[in-house]
Amino acid sequence: MRLRLTSAILLLAMMVQGSDAQQSLAGYTPERSRTETLWEKRFRDLPERSQIRADMLHLSARPHHVGSPYDKQNAEWLLAKLKSYGLEGDIETFTALFPTPKMRKLELLGSVPFHAKLRLPPLAIDPTSSQTSEQLPPYNAYSRDGDVTAPLVYVNYGRPEDYDSLARMGVSVKGMIVIARYGLNWRGVKVRIAAEHGAIGCILYSDPHEDGYFRGEPYPAGPMRTADGVQSGSVLDMPLRPGDPQSPDDVSPPGVKLIPLDKIETITKIPVLPISYADATPLLKSLQGETVPEAWRGALPFTYRTGPSIAKVHLALSSNWDRKPLYDVIASIPGASQPNQWVIRGNHHDAWVNGAGDPLSGASAELEEARALGQLLREGWRPQRTIFYCFWDGEEPGMLGSTAWAKAHATDLAQHAVAYFNTDGNGRGYLSAAGSHSLENFVSQVAKDIDDPETGMSVWERARLVQILLASSPQARTELRARPDLRIPALGGGSDYIAFLDHLGIATIDLSYGGEDEAMGQYHSAYDDFYWYSHFEDTDFSYARVLAQTAGTMVMRMASADLLPFQFSDFANTVRLYDDQLKTLITDMRDQAKEENQEISESVYRALYDPKKRMIPPPSQALPPDLNFKPLDQACSDLTAAAQLFDSAFIAAHGMAPSNVNAELIQSERALTDPRGLPGRPWFQHLIYAPGFYTGYEAKTLPGVREAIEQRRWKDADTQILNVSAALERVAGLLKQATESLLSQK
Amino acid sequence: MRLRLTSAILLLAMMVQGSDAQQSLAGYTPERSRTETLWEKRFRDLPERSQIRADMLHLSARPHHVGSPYDKQNAEWLLAKLKSYGLEGDIETFTALFPTPKMRKLELLGSVPFHAKLRLPPLAIDPTSSQTSEQLPPYNAYSRDGDVTAPLVYVNYGRPEDYDSLARMGVSVKGMIVIARYGLNWRGVKVRIAAEHGAIGCILYSDPHEDGYFRGEPYPAGPMRTADGVQSGSVLDMPLRPGDPQSPDDVSPPGVKLIPLDKIETITKIPVLPISYADATPLLKSLQGETVPEAWRGALPFTYRTGPSIAKVHLALSSNWDRKPLYDVIASIPGASQPNQWVIRGNHHDAWVNGAGDPLSGASAELEEARALGQLLREGWRPQRTIFYCFWDGEEPGMLGSTAWAKAHATDLAQHAVAYFNTDGNGRGYLSAAGSHSLENFVSQVAKDIDDPETGMSVWERARLVQILLASSPQARTELRARPDLRIPALGGGSDYIAFLDHLGIATIDLSYGGEDEAMGQYHSAYDDFYWYSHFEDTDFSYARVLAQTAGTMVMRMASADLLPFQFSDFANTVRLYDDQLKTLITDMRDQAKEENQEISESVYRALYDPKKRMIPPPSQALPPDLNFKPLDQACSDLTAAAQLFDSAFIAAHGMAPSNVNAELIQSERALTDPRGLPGRPWFQHLIYAPGFYTGYEAKTLPGVREAIEQRRWKDADTQILNVSAALERVAGLLKQATESLLSQK
Repeated sequence: MRLRLTSAILLLAMMVQGSDAQQSLAGYTPERSRTETLWEKRFRDLPERSQIRADMLHLSARPHHVGSPYDKQNAEWLLAKLKSYGLEGDIETFTALFPTPKMRKLELLGSVPFHAKLRLPPLAIDPTSSQTSEQLPPYNAYSRDGDVTAPLVYVNYGRPEDYDSLARMGVSVKGMIVIARYGLNWRGVKVRIAAEHGAIGCILYSDPHEDGYFRGEPYPAGPMRTADGVQSGSVLDMPLRPGDPQSPDDVSPPGVKLIPLDKIETITKIPVLPISYADATPLLKSLQGETVPEAWRGALPFTYRTGPSIAKVHLALSSNWDRKPLYDVIASIPGASQPNQWVIRGNHHDAWVNGAGDPLSGASAELEEARALGQLLREGWRPQRTIFYCFWDGEEPGMLGSTAWAKAHATDLAQHAVAYFNTDGNGRGYLSAAGSHSLENFVSQVAKDIDDPETGMSVWERARLVQILLASSPQARTELRARPDLRIPALGGGSDYIAFLDHLGIATIDLSYGGEDEAMGQYHSAYDDFYWYSHFEDTDFSYARVLAQTAGTMVMRMASADLLPFQFSDFANTVRLYDDQLKTLITDMRDQAKEENQEISESVYRALYDPKKRMIPPPSQALPPDLNFKPLDQACSDLTAAAQLFDSAFIAAHGMAPSNVNAELIQSERALTDPRGLPGRPWFQHLIYAPGFYTGYEAKTLPGVREAIEQRRWKDADTQILNVSAALERVAGLLKQATESLLSQK
Repeated sequence: MRLRLTSAILLLAMMVQGSDAQQSLAGYTPERSRTETLWEKRFRDLPERSQIRADMLHLSARPHHVGSPYDKQNAEWLLAKLKSYGLEGDIETFTALFPTPKMRKLELLGSVPFHAKLRLPPLAIDPTSSQTSEQLPPYNAYSRDGDVTAPLVYVNYGRPEDYDSLARMGVSVKGMIVIARYGLNWRGVKVRIAAEHGAIGCILYSDPHEDGYFRGEPYPAGPMRTADGVQSGSVLDMPLRPGDPQSPDDVSPPGVKLIPLDKIETITKIPVLPISYADATPLLKSLQGETVPEAWRGALPFTYRTGPSIAKVHLALSSNWDRKPLYDVIASIPGASQPNQWVIRGNHHDAWVNGAGDPLSGASAELEEARALGQLLREGWRPQRTIFYCFWDGEEPGMLGSTAWAKAHATDLAQHAVAYFNTDGNGRGYLSAAGSHSLENFVSQVAKDIDDPETGMSVWERARLVQILLASSPQARTELRARPDLRIPALGGGSDYIAFLDHLGIATIDLSYGGEDEAMGQYHSAYDDFYWYSHFEDTDFSYARVLAQTAGTMVMRMASADLLPFQFSDFANTVRLYDDQLKTLITDMRDQAKEENQEISESVYRALYDPKKRMIPPPSQALPPDLNFKPLDQACSDLTAAAQLFDSAFIAAHGMAPSNVNAELIQSERALTDPRGLPGRPWFQHLIYAPGFYTGYEAKTLPGVREAIEQRRWKDADTQILNVSAALERVAGLLKQATESLLSQK
């Protein structure tokens, strides 16, 4: 067996020499680059679409949420598989608070009472949809228990600006139950914002405009959400702190004192329940008041009004507030020369129900990577660094498993972790990569080596061309055409990378493919199952295979580089962009305040007076003060200079690395954290990236400064500018040291 | 009676002297300005909301389309009223081809056949909605007869770019029946464009997104279109030529040879029928093919697809192709000193059905103006010029009555017409004025003297402030704040001003109020009646009164000015803006072609390839050539210089006018016409304004040049630049003469 494979590698070697072998991989000596390239190519031949399909079929055969029997079975099955592939491994078990529904009730009182159905009917054509006895019914985990009755108000997406608009229309939500549509921001912040405005209950629903027939044919004729479809999901206040809400250190060894239920900060202040649009229709139709602004209108066939309703809504909820076991499957391949430098790869395995798309489209690809690496091991490959293949439990409730593991191993990770590569749901289409900008160049380097199955071009080229087509301005297109690396967006919230990146400061990349199908059609519902996925998404598993090739190549290349392939010019360029955005933000806020004040003074709002409508003019505003951006500008300049020198020295080094340089590079992301964390949420220690406190999914960059400006906390803004500047200077300092080391070896 | 009124005027005189009497009206000597101001104020006190309401109630009591008994009765009643008010008058009768439905049939064939209802049900609460025996049923007048059966394709709004998008999705409409939603462009061009692309039949429907529950509560709970609501309307090819399609000179004295039916250019090439969304729903649901682009999706509760349908649609139509009488009611007040200078005021009186909003909200206001002017006559007022108050027939089918009258009196009008003031439907809200920019300053001057009933500010100030709030950019806001005159938009198509402005070159202003209600809710249907209007629109007729005050003041001020209040700096400034827009248009077309060609060459469209979808890449394009804008730039400069000199001389003249100057000013708009007309549509002789050939309602400015560029007829563009430049130089010449005359009188 070994012989035959070796000859295959020799054949590949000849092909490579004839083509692109001249150019060494970044961070590799020319010789090691040739070997690595051969192994990577061999690796990318191994993933099989049929295997991934079979794995997804097995893992999605039954509901497997946290605490379910099949969740544990899947963990054990994954471990057995990984071991059979030749990886070492174990299950690390933690526990966490995970509430499940005891009682859910929603009704519209009044002359013709309506009782919401709150369930997804099984479909004959879809075999797993009938496993109702094992399914969690639709709910929002970590909603507090409650029993409230009040008139209803429609709040659009439930963003702060939506409540501002309502106030301008003379509508208050104080003492009301609000109904918000899913979309744009993360569900958990919708509830928090509703409570901040005095609402006593919250209903979330899937409007067909975002999530249903407006986008495409409903299931099972097409992929989209049906009339009874509901998006379940956690409302744990993760932008404040993810992980087990009862144990602030996220690990709860026996004997540790847990926070009592009524003292937990990250449970919602008001009860919240997700419903379908079939259940939402009678509620929305009961609303009185004015027609909502055009941008607030969904795709249901009636006039959307603000409310309040005359008929009251009754919402009653209670949960079983139990602690549940978490089964993190952790497998590893020990590093040959640098076992204490860790490259970590992860995807969660728990789901809300059967979870074919979320998370198994990513997890099955990850498992296939492990199979391929196991095969390489048998063929003689050894990574220089230690590789971890992790399958997290408890992502859906609140990144419970990944956060617990990250905290349990925090000291080791701080010292040893090189990078974390995350995946989650995956689909058909274009490469999407986000995360640490010190890896921006690395992402492009790998993506150029991955073939797109539909077009034959590289996934890098395809992503770049699609970005050109979608670019918002000629300037953006010009940059895309000129820039050697794809720009990668910053990471916000939504998957297991949070503890690694935002809490521990480990350089992170999150990967997926998508853009060609309506991938969110059954998101977080019982129809996100094998039948649905295999009929409407990446139906032949081509892109699961490409995901395995992409993530696996990244893991391999990072694990065996002589000199870790971090580059900092992209990072410096990106941070300067963020700095500029902050200044534009302030200028725009000032211009807007000036304009609105002028409009008030010249009676524009009196001109708008319409006796048939309510209209409250905005109050006049104080203008934002001048902030001192000099330290940040200086830090950007210092960082840019240091980054350019380092990147040049990196190239000149041709993979020759003095021993201290890699250790310094590993620390470069850690240098961006601050143990004091962000204002009001100390768990978030990364000063460059965070999920927005009022957006949840969407990243805020330079979050301490940006959110202070957005929320008009001017003192915080000044302090945070200094903190960020100091962090950037730390990185610049590290890079100077590393550059000197690189140059001194000549 | 006379005595008491005279003392009221004396009292007013004292008030005026204490306030704004210092500033003379433009074009008036100080002394005559004082008298005029008093009469105008007196005039504005006279219109009564209750009288306008009663007039609308009477005129809308029965359906009164062209050829109906009540159409004739209304004309006779209007004439009697006008005479009773003290105006001279008569009915001028013309005839025109006006087809009415003989047979209408629309069905979806296939396994579950569907027959469209094609009717609006009477509503118990709405008394006139039950007059079904007198109502014209929903139809598109001047659709050719036809009987076609074919698969169906959805074409969005049916604009040229919509067909381009379909072609890119691999969908052809050749041999198909198309279904287009109402909105954006004028219905007649939707049909023409469909025929140009090879469709054999056309269905128009009112999507609730533009015209129904998406915008507000349906009738009778609210103002909006119901499930069975249909917008009737003409599809005569008016952008080619309005007026009687059988008599090219628009007047048909007995014995004149009429164009035979099968030779008429302005009848549609394919049959077309308007339907409700209830009737459209089964048709749209039958469509196969891909989900349409997001901007194409309406508000109906299902997935919109391109088609074609598998089941065929059968559309059969025939009309009674009869000639019908047109009753134009023409009243006048002879001018005291300049009876041969005519100020013309008009609004149509015919409707599709009962027509409370369209046209009676405008016509009732006009009638009330005439009553008030009659009262002034009794009080001793006399206009210097002759005033015509016209109530047109046959506007709805194709501006038949106004066009016939304009052509019948073309020679006199060319010599005598000073200006035409048009109104049509009216609503509650903000002043909207559009038309000739030589009257832009005049519009602002009058609008500053009109009080807004809701806010107490002038309608000028209210319009200006609302425009500031809605302005698209800070630059636009700055201009609005600095500019002494409101910018008025150019006139396109849609009401009786077309023959006056576009064919004869008579300076024109079209006036209305609106913006606060959903005024189009029952547009062109049987529910546009008194019950609807008086419950949901300008319910207390405040704005009908303000319209009468506004239009009447304009008529009075124009009729008695010593020096006609035309100003040309605004006009010159506007034409230069149009010139700049043309250059931007060319630049944008060139940039876009370059960008698309580059995208093709760099394989962007290959990157977009999705095996699940059809996608036809665009062909590479020839770049637009350089056009010679120098003559136009020069003409703009000459015009600007001449206009500034004239406007200064005008102000310095303090209303002292040598006899030839007013005659020259009257000719200034005529100088903008060219007897050769626009390329391909010689009836349109104005070189600055025209309804777009492919938009219908929307104006195209410098239309000969602009449409040549848009349609890539580069030679025409060059020629048309010369024609427009010559016209502008003619105006500059006229202004120089007029300026010399003004200066020489000193």
